[in-house]
Amino acid sequence: MSILIHTVSIRTDEKSFNWIEDGYVIINEGVFKKIADGKPSEEELTEADEVINGCGKWVCPGLVNTHGHAGMSLLRGYSDDLPLDQWLKEKMWPFEGKLDLEATKAARGLAMVEMIRSGTTTFLEMYHLFMHEFAQDITDAGMRATLMRSMIGLCSKEEQKEKLLEAVEFAKTWHKAADSRIQTMLAPHAPYTCPPEFIEMIVEEAIKLDLPIHMHLAETRKEVREHIQQYHHHPLEHLEKLGFLSEARWLFAHGVHLNEEHIDLLAEYKAGISHNPISNLKLGSGVAPIAEMLQKGVKIGLGTDSVASNNTLDMIEEMRMAAFIHKGIAEDPILIPAEVAIKMATKNGAELLEHEKTGEIKTGYKADFMIIDSHAAHMQPASNRDSHIVYAAKSSDVTDVYVEGLPLMRNKELLTLDEEKIKFEANEHYQRVRSYI
Amino acid sequence: MSILIHTVSIRTDEKSFNWIEDGYVIINEGVFKKIADGKPSEEELTEADEVINGCGKWVCPGLVNTHGHAGMSLLRGYSDDLPLDQWLKEKMWPFEGKLDLEATKAARGLAMVEMIRSGTTTFLEMYHLFMHEFAQDITDAGMRATLMRSMIGLCSKEEQKEKLLEAVEFAKTWHKAADSRIQTMLAPHAPYTCPPEFIEMIVEEAIKLDLPIHMHLAETRKEVREHIQQYHHHPLEHLEKLGFLSEARWLFAHGVHLNEEHIDLLAEYKAGISHNPISNLKLGSGVAPIAEMLQKGVKIGLGTDSVASNNTLDMIEEMRMAAFIHKGIAEDPILIPAEVAIKMATKNGAELLEHEKTGEIKTGYKADFMIIDSHAAHMQPASNRDSHIVYAAKSSDVTDVYVEGLPLMRNKELLTLDEEKIKFEANEHYQRVRSYI
Ligand SMILES: [Zn+2]
Ligand SMILES: [Zn+2]
Repeated sequence: MSILIHTVSIRTDEKSFNWIEDGYVIINEGVFKKIADGKPSEEELTEADEVINGCGKWVCPGLVNTHGHAGMSLLRGYSDDLPLDQWLKEKMWPFEGKLDLEATKAARGLAMVEMIRSGTTTFLEMYHLFMHEFAQDITDAGMRATLMRSMIGLCSKEEQKEKLLEAVEFAKTWHKAADSRIQTMLAPHAPYTCPPEFIEMIVEEAIKLDLPIHMHLAETRKEVREHIQQYHHHPLEHLEKLGFLSEARWLFAHGVHLNEEHIDLLAEYKAGISHNPISNLKLGSGVAPIAEMLQKGVKIGLGTDSVASNNTLDMIEEMRMAAFIHKGIAEDPILIPAEVAIKMATKNGAELLEHEKTGEIKTGYKADFMIIDSHAAHMQPASNRDSHIVYAAKSSDVTDVYVEGLPLMRNKELLTLDEEKIKFEANEHYQRVRSYI
Repeated sequence: MSILIHTVSIRTDEKSFNWIEDGYVIINEGVFKKIADGKPSEEELTEADEVINGCGKWVCPGLVNTHGHAGMSLLRGYSDDLPLDQWLKEKMWPFEGKLDLEATKAARGLAMVEMIRSGTTTFLEMYHLFMHEFAQDITDAGMRATLMRSMIGLCSKEEQKEKLLEAVEFAKTWHKAADSRIQTMLAPHAPYTCPPEFIEMIVEEAIKLDLPIHMHLAETRKEVREHIQQYHHHPLEHLEKLGFLSEARWLFAHGVHLNEEHIDLLAEYKAGISHNPISNLKLGSGVAPIAEMLQKGVKIGLGTDSVASNNTLDMIEEMRMAAFIHKGIAEDPILIPAEVAIKMATKNGAELLEHEKTGEIKTGYKADFMIIDSHAAHMQPASNRDSHIVYAAKSSDVTDVYVEGLPLMRNKELLTLDEEKIKFEANEHYQRVRSYI
């Protein structure tokens, strides 16, 4: 199966240019076979199984969401603007406690619809419920994902072992499944919910399986303070002292409350960070020192976290926030320019989630991409495309999304998911679960 | 002419409720005649000149943009991510120096299209070029606006007088024009561009005309530092010492670098603030102390500033940023809850721009409103509407916009502006002006 898309602007890192103004791409068996300037030859047009006129739209790498909990998607708008403790204990946990398979499935269907509609091709899911079923649904929907059964260790040793067994079994079953569209990780929830001995068990399994570890880290000032009280070390220093940082590949979510030495540790051990600026702002957690991390060579991806603290899964908004917030905080308008925000949301994310040959539009790379229609008023005049993507675009400008050459959305119509059914069911299950509380 | 819109949720501050779940509104001669729960009577249906089935959409107050320069709209994406001085001197000013009537008109047409599409009914324009022509175009487009000829005083006394004469003549000509849809103000550009004697002349005219004064204030740390060096006072203290604060009604834009005493001055003299969080972040200006201002009773509206520093005129994004940023900076998730962000973007804005009986959906108020379609995936499940408007909605959810009962957009089609022509001309003039530099 080959597809040729012509008359498009292409955001490619091939050769020395960032953008091909007017060119075409040829996709063969899910892989970019050619990315070229100008018009395709007669032969190329004849050879392609499908020829699409892109009408001047922009072919851009698909967006990669490096931190989320799609299983929580029924919680959008269920509770906002509350102190963190009250929000968690009175709102989030009681609702999550009632989530059954049907409700979680509906939540994740909704999440996939929203992600595809906003140009996301690849995402991370860290959650404790019904991961096998979600892996299957993702496979069917054609998305790319890095999945993990999240573990909270505040329980008996037996329960810890049971959770770890489940997580390992899940990771083994699904790693490189669906033509490698699914990758897996191990995921202790956070240092404040996982005692060191439990993290050690997880690290050992990660080494055996050669899998990375994903964990929330230093999201709030309170959690860091309490960790220091209990263990006399900042959580990240603590992980280093225990020898865990050197033994495995780490991707941390948040990393809001880190100082210079902590950033040095991230750089030294090549640990990545999922920067989730909107969630960090909305929950009042703070602003992660991302400019400092970039300066020291720490790899940063962007994540939305769940809709309970965002309240969308819109990676265009996340890019924009990442580009805005650090300029404002540091009073320095040159921090995180548009192209850096795009790189974080695409190439960096793909590398952090360990999906090889994705995240860029390049010959030989998997054909994960979105098509942006730049005709709306808020995208005029046609000046700088990177600027428009980060500072002006809306997810409503995304018209098409492909993963490995397979169209998941065409002209704003979803092809692998029944959107109306999913939205209906999300509302049904939201009402049902609410009524249990 | 009367319009009845039924089967809608209505965001109203009438009586004790914020939202009517399922109700109807009757608009007569541009004014809300009735806002009611339930279904209209047969008689009401028969009496209305036009009956519209809202199909469960949400009728919300139109958004009010309290600070902008629509004349700069061709500059979107022309320059980003540069140090402020270089951005202004090498990019903004040379381009603006070449703006002629045709280019400015095209810029403002584009701005109006973008504003209407994102639910804005009322806006402020502070600019020095072709204000009469814009006032006429706004009148024709049916929008509501508060307009002023901005004045920079770094010139000879003769030029100052000429500018002031022009500003006064404009203000007199257009104040309460177009059925009061146009209001005017006087507008010294900023304390760092207007010497005290010039501001004094403007204040005197404002008193004579009973008009408010709009001015940029304390946008950057540098400008405040230099003002203190030159005059030994912070710009706001300086205005107070000169007696100007007590003599006129003030609406300041930005107010980023203000301390507690400055906020006390704002409260004491009932001066308003246009909070422009996105522009302040993008230009690296900082974050205005809005939570502190609200606590002391300062009236806050929301503004986008121009697309050169935003890069959109999307008030939904501005509301969202206002709700996010202060929570994050203060590490306090209860600051600026959704309903406060909505109030700033509607009722407060209308009051600050002095458009009486607008900014709320209330019997006897002018029928300025937007209709939001909540069917998109990112608006599910149907939980809290205020939360969804601020934390999840996109301008693409806005389907209809009315000003004083006149539809400016219906089912996403603009009725008073030729959108395709405007977009084409914006690009033509952008290319032309660029070629002069
Ligand atoms: Zn999380
Ligand atoms: Zn301004």
